[in-house]
Amino acid sequence: MTALGWQQSAEILCIGTELLLGEVVNTNANYLAAELARLGIPHYYQTVVGDNPTRIKQAIAIACERARLLIFTGGLGPTPDDLTTETIADFFETPLIERPEIIADLDQKFAQRGGYSPSNRKQALLPSGAEILPNPTGTAPGLIWQPRPGLTLMTFPGVPSEMKAMWQQTAVPYLQAQGWGQEMIYSRVLRFWGIPESVLAEKVAAQIALANPTVAPYAGEGEARLRITTKAKSEIEANQLIQPIEQQIRNITGLDCYGTDNDTLAAVVGKLLLARQQTLGVAESCTGGGLGAMLTTLPGSSAYFLGGVISYANAIKINVLGVDGDVLAKAGAVSAIVAGQMAQGGKELLGSDWALSITGIAGPGGGSELKPVGLVFIGLAGPENFLETFEYRFSSQRGRDWIRSLSSRAALDKLRRQLLRGS
Amino acid sequence: MTALGWQQSAEILCIGTELLLGEVVNTNANYLAAELARLGIPHYYQTVVGDNPTRIKQAIAIACERARLLIFTGGLGPTPDDLTTETIADFFETPLIERPEIIADLDQKFAQRGGYSPSNRKQALLPSGAEILPNPTGTAPGLIWQPRPGLTLMTFPGVPSEMKAMWQQTAVPYLQAQGWGQEMIYSRVLRFWGIPESVLAEKVAAQIALANPTVAPYAGEGEARLRITTKAKSEIEANQLIQPIEQQIRNITGLDCYGTDNDTLAAVVGKLLLARQQTLGVAESCTGGGLGAMLTTLPGSSAYFLGGVISYANAIKINVLGVDGDVLAKAGAVSAIVAGQMAQGGKELLGSDWALSITGIAGPGGGSELKPVGLVFIGLAGPENFLETFEYRFSSQRGRDWIRSLSSRAALDKLRRQLLRGS
Repeated sequence: MTALGWQQSAEILCIGTELLLGEVVNTNANYLAAELARLGIPHYYQTVVGDNPTRIKQAIAIACERARLLIFTGGLGPTPDDLTTETIADFFETPLIERPEIIADLDQKFAQRGGYSPSNRKQALLPSGAEILPNPTGTAPGLIWQPRPGLTLMTFPGVPSEMKAMWQQTAVPYLQAQGWGQEMIYSRVLRFWGIPESVLAEKVAAQIALANPTVAPYAGEGEARLRITTKAKSEIEANQLIQPIEQQIRNITGLDCYGTDNDTLAAVVGKLLLARQQTLGVAESCTGGGLGAMLTTLPGSSAYFLGGVISYANAIKINVLGVDGDVLAKAGAVSAIVAGQMAQGGKELLGSDWALSITGIAGPGGGSELKPVGLVFIGLAGPENFLETFEYRFSSQRGRDWIRSLSSRAALDKLRRQLLRGS
Repeated sequence: MTALGWQQSAEILCIGTELLLGEVVNTNANYLAAELARLGIPHYYQTVVGDNPTRIKQAIAIACERARLLIFTGGLGPTPDDLTTETIADFFETPLIERPEIIADLDQKFAQRGGYSPSNRKQALLPSGAEILPNPTGTAPGLIWQPRPGLTLMTFPGVPSEMKAMWQQTAVPYLQAQGWGQEMIYSRVLRFWGIPESVLAEKVAAQIALANPTVAPYAGEGEARLRITTKAKSEIEANQLIQPIEQQIRNITGLDCYGTDNDTLAAVVGKLLLARQQTLGVAESCTGGGLGAMLTTLPGSSAYFLGGVISYANAIKINVLGVDGDVLAKAGAVSAIVAGQMAQGGKELLGSDWALSITGIAGPGGGSELKPVGLVFIGLAGPENFLETFEYRFSSQRGRDWIRSLSSRAALDKLRRQLLRGS
């Protein structure tokens, strides 16, 4: 397959005033972008424009200059503000012709509903020379059209379920028959905990400098990530290119890399516990149940997660978890010693092999100079009287739920590292 | 306010290869679009482009021709592929100048984390003449710049939480000072629990037929909502238009309407408990801590939320909550009687006035014909031996976390109704 140049790329054009008013999130662009990436079709621009013929034409004019495959979504319906097809025809100065196949299809689709309205008839009009792109799940068909050599247009309805069905059932086979998507883009995300993005980027600078596969750092949800991307004819070929780079990065970063792609710390910890046939309990204060909720997001977590105590009030720390009241009064609820006693008490009460505790100041109130918002202690109790505590000082800038989410994941990470060290 | 013409419009430019690869849904464009609509700023195009200087410059060139306010998101970070600021400077042939204020801000923000890396220093560079758009929640500041008369640029980071904080705290006041957004769109959302959207729409058909304010029903996160919208010069004027319609709707819908705008069931329940100086505890099985986490999202929840037991394993239901083992064996963990005993046991153990329990089958596995996925029992124990249980059969189509979230909110709604009835 020859390398695709600038002109060989696709552009996504989403048409709909609802997008400009912020009433709808543009998930269509996201879906099509991922599909283009998967098919290895380069794609450098997305344009969103309202239901306005002049502006739609301006967007088409620009897109024709910089792409050779124009993918439109939206504006195929029966209402007066659905203008995509007629505006495209107008732009390319081509008459619209009523298609008997579409009329027949509408007759059939509306038979059960008692016939279609006159406005639906507009959906049977396509520019002369355009092929019909059938809509298997809705009434509005799209088109595939080469209005001039080297330029292909495809239109899809804005309803995501209809667009996706058309894309998969009709558009992808067409594109592959045209020679697109012979070589696809594959990528793997490596996920890290306990290392800032900038430090990670410096550690793997040699890999980031590579031309193929490419390695790109980015941050998401409080963790650093690296994306390794390559183009290949098959998943096996892609893997052969990505695997050695992944290994280099894993060698450099060690335990900081906790997983790939859709892995989560909760899932990774779950697998480690399952492999050891060990169980986990939690004792949560500032997270209020969030760590338990994170662990139980996973189906099957009952195999290793027993449960926990949400000891939000100090009385519950003392009466249920058995934290020493004098120690709590002296050191404060947010302290390493209380975190340790919470973990130990939780482990005993719940009868688990491991117990994680979290106590901290999630804010926005409750902080002091000595114990600011963002100060969090994590306790980890385990087999053979294992007990460790950890102190974190998270930034308070992103608010209460951010601190709580970081706390839960930091706790899981500590258990992960301990389980891996112990193996 | 004078009518704003074509040239008076804004364009949103979202920069990031992750958008072109379909890795990220462009919620930033949606948020900013809604905000522009709220401020009454016309907005006709959105452009998405990757981390490529040539293409970013091409997008700027086009946007300059058709809008006079260019709003950029993405590409402000410290890594080499964060190119927005330098590309903008290059396009307008303006040198970048290191800003001591930003360096000072970075020094302060990174002080706790042991200093920033050399790559962060790049974030202190802004084009000569540009003002700093402070980033209250992150490290990357943006800019506000008029590179030439009649053209204003604003840049925001791609991280949605940072972008939103900057938009609200800095950009909106700036735009209003410039005369944008004199007449704004105001809306109030009424939130409902326990009534389907279609039933609600029929009940308030007379209000939905109004021309001003408009009343539109929609569904979100499993609940029905009504949005009352009007255009006004001030919040007071808007309120005078919205308030009577809200009252009509509240009279019709009674207890089904639980709140407005950003109210949550957890917040509403919290306020009711606070007013009664009563406390709440939880006993959670399938939600795994999610109800506790929902309650403690709110700062100050410690005034009424004591804590809870996550009794994921049956042993914890029996040993910690005191559920009768024989009853559990006979009726099953997912049963009204166990839900009741969990609530009662939780209330006693935790010493709270009220206790909510949840036990159910969140799936995807574990269902049977008699007890399908989505079957959930909720228990509510209260003062003077109050005890009620409730059975739900949620649809399993939207998966495990959906069932868990509905369960937690259904539980809160039951307590809400009980507290309101008791008053």
